Amino acid sequence: MKLPDYTDVVKAHELIRPLVHRTPVLTSSSINLITGAQLYFKCENLQKVGAFKFRGACNAVFSLSDEQVARGVCTHSSGNHAAALALAARLCGVPAYIVMPSNAPSIKKKAVEGYGAQITFCEPTLASRESTLAEIAAKTGATEIHPYNNFEVIAGQGTAAKELLEEVGPLDILLCPIGGGGLLSGTSITGRELNSKGLVIAAEPEGADDAYRSFHAKKLIPSVNPKTIADGLLTSVGEINFRIIQRKTDEIVTVSERGIVQAMRMIWERMKIIVEPSSAVALAAILENKVEVKDKKIGVILSGGNVDLDNLPF
Amino acid sequence: MKLPDYTDVVKAHELIRPLVHRTPVLTSSSINLITGAQLYFKCENLQKVGAFKFRGACNAVFSLSDEQVARGVCTHSSGNHAAALALAARLCGVPAYIVMPSNAPSIKKKAVEGYGAQITFCEPTLASRESTLAEIAAKTGATEIHPYNNFEVIAGQGTAAKELLEEVGPLDILLCPIGGGGLLSGTSITGRELNSKGLVIAAEPEGADDAYRSFHAKKLIPSVNPKTIADGLLTSVGEINFRIIQRKTDEIVTVSERGIVQAMRMIWERMKIIVEPSSAVALAAILENKVEVKDKKIGVILSGGNVDLDNLPF
Repeated sequence: MKLPDYTDVVKAHELIRPLVHRTPVLTSSSINLITGAQLYFKCENLQKVGAFKFRGACNAVFSLSDEQVARGVCTHSSGNHAAALALAARLCGVPAYIVMPSNAPSIKKKAVEGYGAQITFCEPTLASRESTLAEIAAKTGATEIHPYNNFEVIAGQGTAAKELLEEVGPLDILLCPIGGGGLLSGTSITGRELNSKGLVIAAEPEGADDAYRSFHAKKLIPSVNPKTIADGLLTSVGEINFRIIQRKTDEIVTVSERGIVQAMRMIWERMKIIVEPSSAVALAAILENKVEVKDKKIGVILSGGNVDLDNLPF
Repeated sequence: MKLPDYTDVVKAHELIRPLVHRTPVLTSSSINLITGAQLYFKCENLQKVGAFKFRGACNAVFSLSDEQVARGVCTHSSGNHAAALALAARLCGVPAYIVMPSNAPSIKKKAVEGYGAQITFCEPTLASRESTLAEIAAKTGATEIHPYNNFEVIAGQGTAAKELLEEVGPLDILLCPIGGGGLLSGTSITGRELNSKGLVIAAEPEGADDAYRSFHAKKLIPSVNPKTIADGLLTSVGEINFRIIQRKTDEIVTVSERGIVQAMRMIWERMKIIVEPSSAVALAAILENKVEVKDKKIGVILSGGNVDLDNLPF
C-alpha cells in the first residue's frame, strides 16, 4: 500500500490553497506564563465549517477524476467530516450523499443540508451506517470518502502543520489531538519533513485511548465503548493512519476528562476563541504535565470549534 | 485644543507595534451570504487583555516623559481600560493606580491585580470614582489616563483601522461601535486619511444613544441612565472624541438589544470567536438594515471579547 508522503502534502496544499482559510496562528501571554512554554496555536477552529476536516475533504474531492466527479461522493458521518465533505462537494459541483444516524444533533443536520448534500438517515449503529452507505454507493456509483482512512484526506490534513511551520519556524514539539488519526498522520508527515529536529506528539482522552494503546502495543487495537466529552475523538484509529503514526509519530499521551474541560475553558477565557472539547485535549496534556514543555517552543493544532452553545460543559 | 490627526496614528503605530498583537482579519462565507456583503472583521477581541483598549493605553503610557514615568499613571474604570492600562504600565515599568467601584465583577478585579496594578475601591458612583481618583493623583503625582477623552489614547485606537485597511485595501464602509468615542474617533481619523472614498459609520445601542443624539443635534448631550447589555458602551461621549466625530464620522445609527444578542450569537456560532455584546453592535446594525451594505465591502471592528462565561445572554 502506498502511503502519502510530504510531496503529497505539498500537492494538496497547492490544490486547496484557494479554497481553505489560511487560519491565524495565535499566542497568549497568559497561557505561556501558566505553562512556562512558548505556545503557537494553529486555529483550525476558525477554518471553514469550523474544523481542519475541510482541508482533507477538499483535497479528496478536488482530486477526483472527471468520471468520479459526475457520480459524486458519499460518506457516513455525524460530525465535522459530513459538513466538510458537503461544502467541498458543493464548491466542486459534485453531488454529495451523506449517511447520518437518526440521532445526529439537529444543528449538524442543518449544516449538511445547508451545503446542499443529500442526507439519508439510518439507525445509530455502525452496522446500519455501513450498510446504508454501501447501498447508496451501489445505487449512485458515488466515491466513498472516508473521514480519515484515506490517502488524499491525510495529505490534506498535513497542510495545517505546513502552514504553521512556515509561519513560526522550527518547533520543539508539534502537538495535536488523535481520534481516527487523520490529523495526526498528516501532521506527522509534515513534521518529519519540515521540522525533523522536533517531536510530533498526540494527546488522547483516557476514555477513548485506543490510539495510545495501539501505539504502545505496536498493533492496531480497536476502540471498545469509548466515552469522552471530546466527541470528535470517539472513532478508532484507521489502518493507513496507524501505519504512518507508527513510523512518524514520537509519542501519544492521554488526558483526563476534567483536564479537557479545564483546558477548553482556559482557551475560551484567555484566547477569546471557541474550541470544541476535542480541540482542548492537546493543551490538557500540557496542563496535566503529560508533555514536558518548559522553555520549549510548541505548536498546538486546535482542531475545531463546533459546539452547541446551549449545552456547554461549564 | 490640538486634535490628534493621522500622523499621530502613524506615530502611535510605530510605538506600539512591538507591544500589541497584530490581530487577524477574519471573514465568514455564511455571514457574507446572510448579509449580501463582503465583511472583513478586525478581531480586537483577540487583542491583549481582550480589547482594542490595549492599543490606546500602550500609546499613552509609552508616550509619557521620564518624569511622568517615575510617578506612574492612574485612572478609574471597571472595565477593559483598567486591565489595558495595568498591563501597559507593567510592560513599561510604570506604577499604575486604578480606582474601581466596589461592585466591579471579581473577574475584572483579578485581571487588574494580576497585572500588578494597585487597586483602590470606592463607592459605585461617578462622584466617588472621580473624588477617589483626584485624591490618588494628588498623593502620587500619577498622570491620569482617561479611557477615551485623551489625545494619545485616540491616536492608539486609530491603529486598528490602519492595520485593517493596510491588509484588505479600500473599503466602502468602516463600521465600529461607539461608547465613549475613543475607537470611533481614532477609526474616523484613519478612515478619512487612508480610505477617503469610503464612509465611517458607528453603531450604538438604542438604550445608550447619547452619541446618536449628540451627532444629530450637533452638540454634546450627555447620557442619562443608559441601559444596555453592551456594558462597554454605557459611557457618554468625550469632548475631544466628539469634536473629531463631528468632523470625520459620516453617520451614527442605533440598534435594538435583541439585535445585539442575535448578532453576538451569530458571531460565536459562525465565526467561532468570543465577542462581548459591545462588539456585536456593528453587525447588529447590518442585520437590522440600519446600514446599507448590499454588494459592498465592509470593515467591521470587533472591539472586545471579555464576557463572563457563567452569565451568557443566550
